[in-house]
Amino acid sequence: MHKEKIPKTTIYRLALYLRTLEKVAREKKVFISSQEMGKLCGVDSAQLRKDLSYFGQFGEVGRGYNVSILITNLKKILKLHRRVWKVALAGVGHLGTALLSYRGFREAGFDICCAFDSDPQKIGKKIQRVKIYSHKKMREVILKHRIKIGIIAVPPESAPDVAEKMVSAGVKALLNFAPVRLSFSSSVIVKNVDLSTELLSLPFYLKC
Amino acid sequence: MHKEKIPKTTIYRLALYLRTLEKVAREKKVFISSQEMGKLCGVDSAQLRKDLSYFGQFGEVGRGYNVSILITNLKKILKLHRRVWKVALAGVGHLGTALLSYRGFREAGFDICCAFDSDPQKIGKKIQRVKIYSHKKMREVILKHRIKIGIIAVPPESAPDVAEKMVSAGVKALLNFAPVRLSFSSSVIVKNVDLSTELLSLPFYLKC
Repeated sequence: MHKEKIPKTTIYRLALYLRTLEKVAREKKVFISSQEMGKLCGVDSAQLRKDLSYFGQFGEVGRGYNVSILITNLKKILKLHRRVWKVALAGVGHLGTALLSYRGFREAGFDICCAFDSDPQKIGKKIQRVKIYSHKKMREVILKHRIKIGIIAVPPESAPDVAEKMVSAGVKALLNFAPVRLSFSSSVIVKNVDLSTELLSLPFYLKC
Repeated sequence: MHKEKIPKTTIYRLALYLRTLEKVAREKKVFISSQEMGKLCGVDSAQLRKDLSYFGQFGEVGRGYNVSILITNLKKILKLHRRVWKVALAGVGHLGTALLSYRGFREAGFDICCAFDSDPQKIGKKIQRVKIYSHKKMREVILKHRIKIGIIAVPPESAPDVAEKMVSAGVKALLNFAPVRLSFSSSVIVKNVDLSTELLSLPFYLKC
């Protein structure tokens, strides 16, 4: 199966399945049905089975999915099984600091190993053992660590420049928290995270 | 159409379409095709048409969707057209502070009108003109403002208690950033936001 043929939303959902299964595994559950897993993930079980079917046959008839085997397979598919991915963070404001303190990244196999900010008060300091560099050092540090993944947590007006700098230093995948669209050639993947989208969907369920 | 029949993922995607269309509108675009809109949202255009079809017929043959009309319709569907929704925030650490400073919520029709924290240093202060109260005042303040939406940005160990307190004061919808599963009866809707899920899906696209 060519990567290009697999919908991006499928890949996103695989990540969601993995996060959910890890929680399920902590509850010592051995098997899980597609219905139950779909419910926990907020995804239709037919969609879930279709997503997994791009990559093989994972369920056992009458028993569902073996949780730990499916975790291993999802990690392989998502390339999270063999290594820790080094990540560069741009912007150490409140959001950036929250991201540095977020335990989930490390658990998921990501290591934010350097951070960048333009505030002289912050440059040279460490937050959560991560050193903060000047934006001017970005190219040098990213090249040195051979970092392929960047997180953008700078204000929207500086996001395009900062993203461009990361990409020119070899970053191939960006997680963008700035509310601005970043566009690059198809060799760079950009994921935009809009913190308000989830909030927007809540009133639908409220009586008013 | 009964609300119960509409998949939660459809409602989430409607929010995503709305956010995307608002960006498109800023670029002065009048019409957009389902293909183009799907591409911008990372959603298959057939899925997009199906999502919208739950609520009516919105496209014009040969022209696509009128951007501003579709925005208005999506706002109506999502109950974002008539009022600003008051929101209570629990937890004013780095993430909570970032959320208070996030302009997107206000633009989207949400007003974080009160915040809660257990740190005596923070109680009584204001961040972004939002007053920070002790957790002990939660019930009183939420009842007074008749708040129906809560955001949980406290550490995982306190999240279940804090959420319970919000719900007992009348909150019916929770946006949960704490990496812990919150469960309530079906009359309360909980959206879990896991900041690492998007990151997890990036290495798939990288050569390694």
